[in-house]
Amino acid sequence: MSTPAPGSDATATYLLGLADDALVTAQRLGWWVSRAPELEEDVALANIGLDQLGQARGLYTVVCDLEGAGRTEDDLAYLRDASDFRNVLLVERPQEDFAVCVVRMLLLAAWQSEVYAALASREGPARGVAAKAVKEVAYHLDHAAQWVLRLGDGTALSHERAQAALDAEWPFLAELLEPDPAAVAAGHPDPPSLREAVLARIVPVLTAATLVVPEQSTGQPTGQPTGGRRGHHTEHLTDLLAEMQQVARAHPGATW
Amino acid sequence: MSTPAPGSDATATYLLGLADDALVTAQRLGWWVSRAPELEEDVALANIGLDQLGQARGLYTVVCDLEGAGRTEDDLAYLRDASDFRNVLLVERPQEDFAVCVVRMLLLAAWQSEVYAALASREGPARGVAAKAVKEVAYHLDHAAQWVLRLGDGTALSHERAQAALDAEWPFLAELLEPDPAAVAAGHPDPPSLREAVLARIVPVLTAATLVVPEQSTGQPTGQPTGGRRGHHTEHLTDLLAEMQQVARAHPGATW
Repeated sequence: MSTPAPGSDATATYLLGLADDALVTAQRLGWWVSRAPELEEDVALANIGLDQLGQARGLYTVVCDLEGAGRTEDDLAYLRDASDFRNVLLVERPQEDFAVCVVRMLLLAAWQSEVYAALASREGPARGVAAKAVKEVAYHLDHAAQWVLRLGDGTALSHERAQAALDAEWPFLAELLEPDPAAVAAGHPDPPSLREAVLARIVPVLTAATLVVPEQSTGQPTGQPTGGRRGHHTEHLTDLLAEMQQVARAHPGATW
Repeated sequence: MSTPAPGSDATATYLLGLADDALVTAQRLGWWVSRAPELEEDVALANIGLDQLGQARGLYTVVCDLEGAGRTEDDLAYLRDASDFRNVLLVERPQEDFAVCVVRMLLLAAWQSEVYAALASREGPARGVAAKAVKEVAYHLDHAAQWVLRLGDGTALSHERAQAALDAEWPFLAELLEPDPAAVAAGHPDPPSLREAVLARIVPVLTAATLVVPEQSTGQPTGQPTGGRRGHHTEHLTDLLAEMQQVARAHPGATW
């Protein structure tokens, strides 16, 4: 265990947030694995979930190295309570409506595309993980965009459900674009600086899908849901973690 | 749509059973994707589930071609009721105990190894699917064996739970080794002829894991659960299908 380098606390905090976003997303996608509308989509969602899980594992490993405290990726996934998770609120709510699933994927993948590209473009402990993730989330973004187009520009009912999903998910985008002191301290782009690029990935898809883009926040969100990066979560995360951590906590080391 | 070749009805029936085994297994493994005791195991179980799902899709496609009636893989997965499924009972019950998950995987993969090897060794419409599946289930078998060894030869508690899982799953092995008229009519090995080879894959693992092998059936099971190949299922399959088919049936074509 080496002495942490200067700035490594902030880097660990920043990367932990990204890792938790990915882990929680993977768990939520897991719900869909046996419920997709087509077998081909079952396979696609399972693979996207595996990509997100791989990103989480890679980032947790980097965080553990930076901490130098002997924690493992499994400790981070299974032995933290909800208040220690740093994921954004966007990803933690149930997504048991297929339109919500694909709209959320569009928003998250657009944001992850910019964040991972920035991480991959500079020296740092997460560069390798980010370089791989850039390619993965490009596929997630494209997959989500195809579905948003198909639903939004589909039947009257599919359009209505896609619009409802967008209206429900959109307010949660603000938190991803809030100022993040840990990102800045670690030398990473402050999320507001990514705003234009992220919206440029999302809005044309929504427009092509004939969906009405909800009023865009000013970047100084008031009244929009936030707090995930500071450990303020909904009961949905508590429920998700209870399910996810049950076996690992009941049987440490998985050998009973 | 060409005229079905002689024997293609029996072949379709036989392959449909194998496909349903794989599909139902994939769905049951899906439950574990967010609940495994380690992140690495999460990834492993998700990949095994994807393999089984791929086998199901490949076999459904062959069945649809043999039928020549215009049904698709999605029709077979989503538009049949439980009484039209031909999977064995082993795979349809919930497996919300990790020891049950790995013991069941050991039994199924040992059997699938022999069945797919036989399919891959001769000309026929499923040869390509089977050749790929042989490699996949070899990994599933090895993965399950490693866990059975780890649990059986682990702590007193893990041994006890592994033995309980084995005692619970073992009676369902008999159905896999029953005479199968469709297999014979299609020119495939009758399951009783695979008995020695299947047990040779299973028993040494159990012995090495210090588990007591339950009394081996005579091959003429009496009182052991059976009927899946004839469409006689438990309420567990009905529940599983209700969950799996809900979105597809509510939104045919997934466009609402």
